Amino acid sequence: MAPEKIRVGLLGLGIVGGGVARLLLDKKDRLSAYLGAELVLAKAADLEPARAQELGLDDSVFVDDAWPVVEDPEIDLIVETVGGLEPARSLVLAALNHGKGVATANKALLASHGVEIFQAARRHGVGISFEASVGGGIPLVRPLRDSLAANRINSCLGILNGTCNFILSRMTAAGEPFGKVLAEAQAKGYAEADPTFDIEGTDTAHKLAIVAALVTGAQPRLEAVPTEGITGITPLDIGYAGEFGFKIKLLAVLNNQGERVEARVHPALVPHDHPLASVDGAYNALHIDGDWVGQVLLYGKGAGRRPTASAVMGDVLELARDKLAGVPGRVPPLGTQADAGRRLELTPLDEAVCQYYCRFAAQDQPGVLAAIARELGEYGISIEKVTQKGRQDQGPVAIVMLTHTAREASLRRALKQIDALPVIAEPTVVIRVA
Amino acid sequence: MAPEKIRVGLLGLGIVGGGVARLLLDKKDRLSAYLGAELVLAKAADLEPARAQELGLDDSVFVDDAWPVVEDPEIDLIVETVGGLEPARSLVLAALNHGKGVATANKALLASHGVEIFQAARRHGVGISFEASVGGGIPLVRPLRDSLAANRINSCLGILNGTCNFILSRMTAAGEPFGKVLAEAQAKGYAEADPTFDIEGTDTAHKLAIVAALVTGAQPRLEAVPTEGITGITPLDIGYAGEFGFKIKLLAVLNNQGERVEARVHPALVPHDHPLASVDGAYNALHIDGDWVGQVLLYGKGAGRRPTASAVMGDVLELARDKLAGVPGRVPPLGTQADAGRRLELTPLDEAVCQYYCRFAAQDQPGVLAAIARELGEYGISIEKVTQKGRQDQGPVAIVMLTHTAREASLRRALKQIDALPVIAEPTVVIRVA
Repeated sequence: MAPEKIRVGLLGLGIVGGGVARLLLDKKDRLSAYLGAELVLAKAADLEPARAQELGLDDSVFVDDAWPVVEDPEIDLIVETVGGLEPARSLVLAALNHGKGVATANKALLASHGVEIFQAARRHGVGISFEASVGGGIPLVRPLRDSLAANRINSCLGILNGTCNFILSRMTAAGEPFGKVLAEAQAKGYAEADPTFDIEGTDTAHKLAIVAALVTGAQPRLEAVPTEGITGITPLDIGYAGEFGFKIKLLAVLNNQGERVEARVHPALVPHDHPLASVDGAYNALHIDGDWVGQVLLYGKGAGRRPTASAVMGDVLELARDKLAGVPGRVPPLGTQADAGRRLELTPLDEAVCQYYCRFAAQDQPGVLAAIARELGEYGISIEKVTQKGRQDQGPVAIVMLTHTAREASLRRALKQIDALPVIAEPTVVIRVA
Repeated sequence: MAPEKIRVGLLGLGIVGGGVARLLLDKKDRLSAYLGAELVLAKAADLEPARAQELGLDDSVFVDDAWPVVEDPEIDLIVETVGGLEPARSLVLAALNHGKGVATANKALLASHGVEIFQAARRHGVGISFEASVGGGIPLVRPLRDSLAANRINSCLGILNGTCNFILSRMTAAGEPFGKVLAEAQAKGYAEADPTFDIEGTDTAHKLAIVAALVTGAQPRLEAVPTEGITGITPLDIGYAGEFGFKIKLLAVLNNQGERVEARVHPALVPHDHPLASVDGAYNALHIDGDWVGQVLLYGKGAGRRPTASAVMGDVLELARDKLAGVPGRVPPLGTQADAGRRLELTPLDEAVCQYYCRFAAQDQPGVLAAIARELGEYGISIEKVTQKGRQDQGPVAIVMLTHTAREASLRRALKQIDALPVIAEPTVVIRVA
């Protein structure tokens, strides 16, 4: 018969891990009734005993060393909320090796070592779930893995970093510069003391690598994902984009055309009537276009103790249910039985085709636009819209443009020519259109 | 070892069933690779052979009688897309009785006979999945059942009927009356020749009954769900609601306060900045508020052959995976092992508490507003906002009001008094605020 208890070993009692501990303790009866078996927080490991005290953990539960937990034959499942690459990677591999299913919220780990970890899970016949690794509390990993599995997903567009989205939303609403809003976000706890990881797009790239794996069944190398952050975004460009009918968002972009797969992270102009345009503040969303389902948007809190713990616990319940049913490795990590561990080759950014927003800083003299248009024309790039702004002070004037779709390499070459023109005063600002 | 084939029996080749057949045939290789076993459309039953021909089904697959299919020991899973109550109910029960998992898109069936069907599935140790029964292609049944299972869902607000949402969106955009837009929707195929089922809210009530079951683990009686449709909505009220900062949507409302559960369907004023306000046209969405996850929105195409077939196929893949793993009854129909077959008692509508939009049609004379306010005050109802509209023609003038929160019973009593005042020319229009 099925065991009547599921014993969870929790690694890491930080923001997310602490939430998981609290949720497990506060809702033990409800979760156990749901499962039809007692769900127990058997062990919780962290280097800082103070965290365990703060959470009111029993002395018999807390340990300051994670290793005995992953090796303990009494433990059924591991929740990994340590974060980072090591020792998280070794702990997860050891847990899988000891036949324990793992729920993890660790996007950096999966983005860098997903292939190795997913292969280990399959080899040992246990499950690994990672709903919380992308989009915090939003159900999106399992919908992609299971519910939408019949679709070829043509594209995903994601707002997957709450810090960046908060900053861009505030810059848009208040017209204030990046630096000032970043400081405000740090003061409010929406941005880390060292925000590099978020504002340079790295965190979003980690999440995109996971989404790409779910969509294609194969994982890209993280280093192969072109990644631009939001530090160069100015209220000026946000304003001009708004005049053209767009908001600026930091997007994770996945275009899946079978042979050609593009995955990249960058700020992008999103049309006002696109569902992602109204995703503001700390909210996240993933916009999915599937060949049968059409457009789907999954929206919610992308971070935070409680939403993320909610997602982890959904995974724990699934792993527990499979363990109770005697089928701990029922679902392959990416859903599909095919292609485990294959590497996803990305189409180079140079070959991307999209529309571009360009802001030229030009001398205020006749013929400038003609010169710019001539260079663009040389590279086969045509103009959809252009606005020449009046001079506001002593500096150069702005020529703001939306191109028709063009090849990235062509645009870059054209801009190199344009920026070398004597009438161009500053390097041209370019932002892709979603 | 696990069988290497999963044989699907499909009942009904209408819009949805035909889509499922096409999807299964077109993507057989992909779906089989995903499952690690051959997924076969073994039998497809419909009363009309012409449908099978149109779909290009093999003669060996088509049958004009569904009964042998549900009894066939060679068939592993049944997809029920017959629709309606009978014979769908008997066929589903027979399939479960024969040990076959069932995927169904039939909301009417589950809303009316869910308790009986879910109990039968558990008794026979097989799965029943119904992602397609609510919200078409949007993944929402499994997110509620599994991913968000750790949450107490405090409330759900759903736009769950594409016909009504198309009509209200068009009325809002074009300022045109209900009848004209309905005719246009019928011409475009967005509304049935007999649209009663949609426009009176019945279809939405069916879906709400299913959502309520997923949220609470118990099913309400369909007759107990207060249901109002959109036939009384006028461009006038849409316009006034807009001036107050709201859109009018047909909502499925679930408030879950543990002991008190409200479930009702009615048009409602939705604030412009609420995520549901921008769900327009044929799109559907479910807005969920969970105690740990916070706000989640799941959005997509709520109907149509391809989105609905996508959802059915997600269910088929799950049922097939469980069958292959030897655990066909792994997941209880509502996720939880507790409370199967319990009836959900709803709090009477009289005890609901919300804000109300009221449009009074009054004689154009002094003191009318004072008279109205006095009656409302008698019942403890206070006014948040009021606008007195100027006379537009010979008729009465409009007094448009937003109340503070009030008890439904109190409001109804107050309105009875007000409508009896000699200065009131027509019955007052009341629409709840979401």
